[in-house]
Amino acid sequence: MTRFVDVQNMIRWAAERGPERIMSEMICYLEDDFRRWESFDKTARVASHTPFGVIELMPTSDHETYGFKYVNGHPANPARGFQTVTAFGVLADVHNGYPTFLTEMTLLTAMRTAATSGMVAKALARPDSSVMAMIGTGSQAEFQALAFRAALGIDRLQIWDTDYAAMEKFVRNIAPLGFHVTIASSAADAVRGADVITTCTADKVNATILTPDLIGPGVHINAIGGDCPGKTELHAGILTMGRVFVEYTPQTRIEGEIQQMPADFSVTEFWEVLNGRASGRSSADQITIFDSVGFAIEDFSALRYLRDSIDGSPYFENIDLVANPDDPKDLFGLVNVLSPLGS
Amino acid sequence: MTRFVDVQNMIRWAAERGPERIMSEMICYLEDDFRRWESFDKTARVASHTPFGVIELMPTSDHETYGFKYVNGHPANPARGFQTVTAFGVLADVHNGYPTFLTEMTLLTAMRTAATSGMVAKALARPDSSVMAMIGTGSQAEFQALAFRAALGIDRLQIWDTDYAAMEKFVRNIAPLGFHVTIASSAADAVRGADVITTCTADKVNATILTPDLIGPGVHINAIGGDCPGKTELHAGILTMGRVFVEYTPQTRIEGEIQQMPADFSVTEFWEVLNGRASGRSSADQITIFDSVGFAIEDFSALRYLRDSIDGSPYFENIDLVANPDDPKDLFGLVNVLSPLGS
Repeated sequence: MTRFVDVQNMIRWAAERGPERIMSEMICYLEDDFRRWESFDKTARVASHTPFGVIELMPTSDHETYGFKYVNGHPANPARGFQTVTAFGVLADVHNGYPTFLTEMTLLTAMRTAATSGMVAKALARPDSSVMAMIGTGSQAEFQALAFRAALGIDRLQIWDTDYAAMEKFVRNIAPLGFHVTIASSAADAVRGADVITTCTADKVNATILTPDLIGPGVHINAIGGDCPGKTELHAGILTMGRVFVEYTPQTRIEGEIQQMPADFSVTEFWEVLNGRASGRSSADQITIFDSVGFAIEDFSALRYLRDSIDGSPYFENIDLVANPDDPKDLFGLVNVLSPLGS
Repeated sequence: MTRFVDVQNMIRWAAERGPERIMSEMICYLEDDFRRWESFDKTARVASHTPFGVIELMPTSDHETYGFKYVNGHPANPARGFQTVTAFGVLADVHNGYPTFLTEMTLLTAMRTAATSGMVAKALARPDSSVMAMIGTGSQAEFQALAFRAALGIDRLQIWDTDYAAMEKFVRNIAPLGFHVTIASSAADAVRGADVITTCTADKVNATILTPDLIGPGVHINAIGGDCPGKTELHAGILTMGRVFVEYTPQTRIEGEIQQMPADFSVTEFWEVLNGRASGRSSADQITIFDSVGFAIEDFSALRYLRDSIDGSPYFENIDLVANPDDPKDLFGLVNVLSPLGS
C-alpha cells in the first residue's frame, strides 16, 4: 500500500503543526540533503511547454529513496480562478521500485521554497538582519515571511505589490502573527533600509523590479520569481554587484536571473558553502544574491520530512496504487478470478 | 478533484469488461494516436538506474492532454514476491496544468503492451495467421494471447518456457477461454509451423532464444522482451532476414533488439505504415519483425481509453490531489483559517 496525503490532510497537518515550525524543521532536512548533494542523481527537470504554460517532472534519487514532483506553471491561471502552480509528489523504494508515498504538494512546495530561502539566508545574510523588503505579496509571501523569522528572527517587513488587494491580503494574514508590516509606495520605497530583499513576482517577462541604485551595501537578495526562460526580476547590473549563489548551476543558467549573463558568469553552488567547500559572505558590506529557481532535491527533502512527520498521525490514508498479485508471474489471474469465464 | 482508479477498481473494471474486449477497444485508441504520431511531444524516458533496477518516468503530450507513466523494472523482484514491473499513470489538462486522472497501471500496462503487439500484427502479420508460438509464459503471456485473438483471430498456441510452472499457470488461465494450447519441448519445437512468434522472456541478458535457422518464410516476429540496454532475445542474424519495425527509433536503438546492430541499421517506424507513409508487409514470404520496447504514447492511449471507459461507471473515486484555494493568491489562507493563530 502507498501512503497518501490529500489536500485536506495536508491542510490539517500544516495548521496543527504550524507553517513556521514546519519550515524550521524542514530546514534541517534541507541542510542534511544539501550537505550530501554529491550523492544524489541530478538531472534538469523534464518540461512540456505549451502556449498556456508548462508541466514539469522533477526526479531525483539518493540510491535508497527515489522521489519526483509533478508541477505546473500557468501564469494566466489566477485570472481564471486557478492556482498558477499546483503540484503533487511521490517517494519510492529504490530496492523494489514500489511507490511508497503520494502527496499533494502545492502547499508543501510553497513551504519548501520558503524554507530553502530561509536556509540560504541563514548562511548568507548578515546575522543581525532585522528588516526584510518583500516585492510581490502573492501566494508565496506569507511563507517567506515565516521562514525568515524562523531562520533569522526577522519580524519587520516592508512590502510592495502592484496589486493592492494582494498587499491587503498579506497584512490580513501576517500581521496577527506578530510581524510589523509597512505598506510601501513603490519598490524603491520598500527596499530602503532593508537588510534582506525578497523578490517574488509572477509576470512571465524580463522585468526590472530592482535596479543597481536601489541596492545598499551588505544586503542579501533572495530572488525567487525569476525561475524560467524569459522570466527575470533583477536588472543585470545587480548581479555583478556581489556574489551570486545558486542551487544547480546547469538549471539556473537556463531558468534563473543569470540567464541574462554570459555562460561563464561566476556563481557558487550553495551546497558547497554549507559543507565548507566554498566561502559564504566575506564581509558585512558584501552583497549576496540567492538566484533561486527550485531544484528536485528540495522537493525530496520536503517529501522526506512530511513522510516522517505524519508517521503515527491521522493525516494520511493508505491507497492501493500498484497491483501486487500473490504469484508475481500470474498478473492475469487477478482479472481472471473475477471474470465470468474464470476457471 | 482528480479521478483515481485504484487496484481493486482496475481489477473489477477489467474483469467486468473482459481483457479481450478491452484490448480490442484499446487498439482503436492506439491506432488513432499512432496515426497522429507527429503531433505528440516525444522524449526518451527519464530513467534512474541502480544495481537493483530502474525507475522511469515516461511523459508525452498532444498539446490538449498531458500524460505520464511511472514504471519500475526490478528483475530480482519475483524471487522476493514482488512484481518485476509496477506502474501508475496520470493525465493532466494542458490548459491549466491540473492533474485530472490518476490510475494504477501495472495491469493497464500489461494490456497496453499486448494491445500494441496486436495492433502491429494486425497490420504486418499474414492475414491468414492461425498459429502463434509463445516463448516465455510470464505475466505478459495471457494478455498477448488474447490481444492476438482480438486482432487476428489466432486461437492455436505453441508455448515454451524454461519454468514449467509458468507454462502450467498459462494453460490453467488460458485453456478455459477457448484456446488450443500445445506445450512444446523447446523453443525450436514451439516455433515449428508458427505463423507468428512472440518472444517475451525476463532475463536481463543478451540471450539467443531464437536463431536464424528456426525462422521460416512469412513469419511475423513479435519481440517483446528485449527492452533495455543489455537485454535482447534474438540472434542478430534474424534482424537481417526481414524488415524491422519499431515504435520510436532513438529509444529502440538504445533499448531494443537493434541495440545489437550498427547505428544506421535500417528500420521503419510503425506509425508510418499505419498512415500510409511507408509500406508494410510486401509479400506472403517476407519476414516482419516488431522490435517492441514500449513508448509513452502507448500509455497515453491506454490512459485516454481507460478514462473514457470508466466515465459513468462505479470504478473510480475522486481524490483531492492539488490545493485550490478560493483566492488563488491566498494559498496561506488555507492553513491559517484552521490555525489557532488564524484571524
